[in-house]
Amino acid sequence: MTATLVLLRHGESTWNAENLFTGWVDVPLSEKGEAEARRGGELLREAGLLPDVLHTSLLRRAISTANIALDVADRHWIPVRRDWRLNERHYGALQGKNKKQTLETYGEEQFMLWRRSYDTPPPEIEPGSEFSQDSDPRYADLGDALPRTECLKDVVARLLPYWESAIVPDLRAGRTVLVAAHGNSLRALVKHLDGISDSDIAGLNIPTGIPLRYDLDENFRPTNPGGTYLDPEAAATAAAAVANQGR
Amino acid sequence: MTATLVLLRHGESTWNAENLFTGWVDVPLSEKGEAEARRGGELLREAGLLPDVLHTSLLRRAISTANIALDVADRHWIPVRRDWRLNERHYGALQGKNKKQTLETYGEEQFMLWRRSYDTPPPEIEPGSEFSQDSDPRYADLGDALPRTECLKDVVARLLPYWESAIVPDLRAGRTVLVAAHGNSLRALVKHLDGISDSDIAGLNIPTGIPLRYDLDENFRPTNPGGTYLDPEAAATAAAAVANQGR
Repeated sequence: MTATLVLLRHGESTWNAENLFTGWVDVPLSEKGEAEARRGGELLREAGLLPDVLHTSLLRRAISTANIALDVADRHWIPVRRDWRLNERHYGALQGKNKKQTLETYGEEQFMLWRRSYDTPPPEIEPGSEFSQDSDPRYADLGDALPRTECLKDVVARLLPYWESAIVPDLRAGRTVLVAAHGNSLRALVKHLDGISDSDIAGLNIPTGIPLRYDLDENFRPTNPGGTYLDPEAAATAAAAVANQGR
Repeated sequence: MTATLVLLRHGESTWNAENLFTGWVDVPLSEKGEAEARRGGELLREAGLLPDVLHTSLLRRAISTANIALDVADRHWIPVRRDWRLNERHYGALQGKNKKQTLETYGEEQFMLWRRSYDTPPPEIEPGSEFSQDSDPRYADLGDALPRTECLKDVVARLLPYWESAIVPDLRAGRTVLVAAHGNSLRALVKHLDGISDSDIAGLNIPTGIPLRYDLDENFRPTNPGGTYLDPEAAATAAAAVANQGR
């Protein structure tokens, strides 16, 4: 038995374009992001890689990316499951801040620690802040579990229960699963799938809009470690660009 | 206990614009249809009528309408359930045919019988026809239950099990339910809700893109018979236009 998992990072958002830390702030795709999503759908269609079920976060940029890509791939009609555990990393007090200004204010070392260390979260967001999710109805059920900041380790911790309880059952049922999510929630998932160490994960960037296929064995481990991008050249170019964000 | 149900007929499709019988053919929204969907979302937002769960058909024009409207209403993140039982009436051999030409070829009486009689379906679609759904993967599980033509009575018969088994449980759980669907699947539902007779339903048209709210009692019967359109003036104008289709 093999199972097929497809990961898709959302296309550029308006805040990506403005170089702001976004996290759980629910910004829309930019026009470029919409075009990336269409391209993602074309790649799925051309590869004949047709998802049977979609899992998304609760954030508009991932939801729109999936809607657009699936429409292009003629799979708009598949079942959808959404969960906050697929959300982007909560960026704490950095949400809404400019990445370049943050780099200049705090210096390279602190900046990279917040962006790429495995277990150092940014400062917590202030309750009632413009960019907090305190009164957002979609998280009303979370109560005290609502994050105020997260490091990648926190994302792994809240993502894995969803992987086990919701995504694996779909894979076990033989469904081709599309996960449309975010830079850090997908890094957390890839860390688990490929068994990447806490330090090595810092060097892994996932490009936007390019479907990444994993073929999984009966233990849900990749038979193609690192996965297979549907457009490898574009993926390599884009991954390099992501690594230079904030510069 | 009262429950809130919101019905939304998809905006204009490219085939509505070309005056073709569509049925189960999966055509996209026209630009006008996308604008109608945005307006539908604005009406939901302005009314503070915020769906907790979405039910759609498996057809792109209903799915896109819901996606667009919910995005505008900031409810893009709610759970989604999709089912073929919410699909438009299958128009049999008329699918893909021009309405005006059909009217001229078969005459007013036959034309209106196919369009509005309760229990006279059009001729069955040919197996393997360009506009049949024989090899469509989304209906692969239906087997012999895949319709080859339907009258409104057939739509009521296949819709009601979904109403009872999927929509009513959401209403019973206190959720505000949005059903994004089609002229005839919504007519079938309204016939049931309002107890409209087999003959009177012929005169009922549901306009596109204008949310129709039903407040339901503990037996899931309307406390506002006929429902309440969020934009009553636009609904009256649009319903009159629907009645004149094919002229």
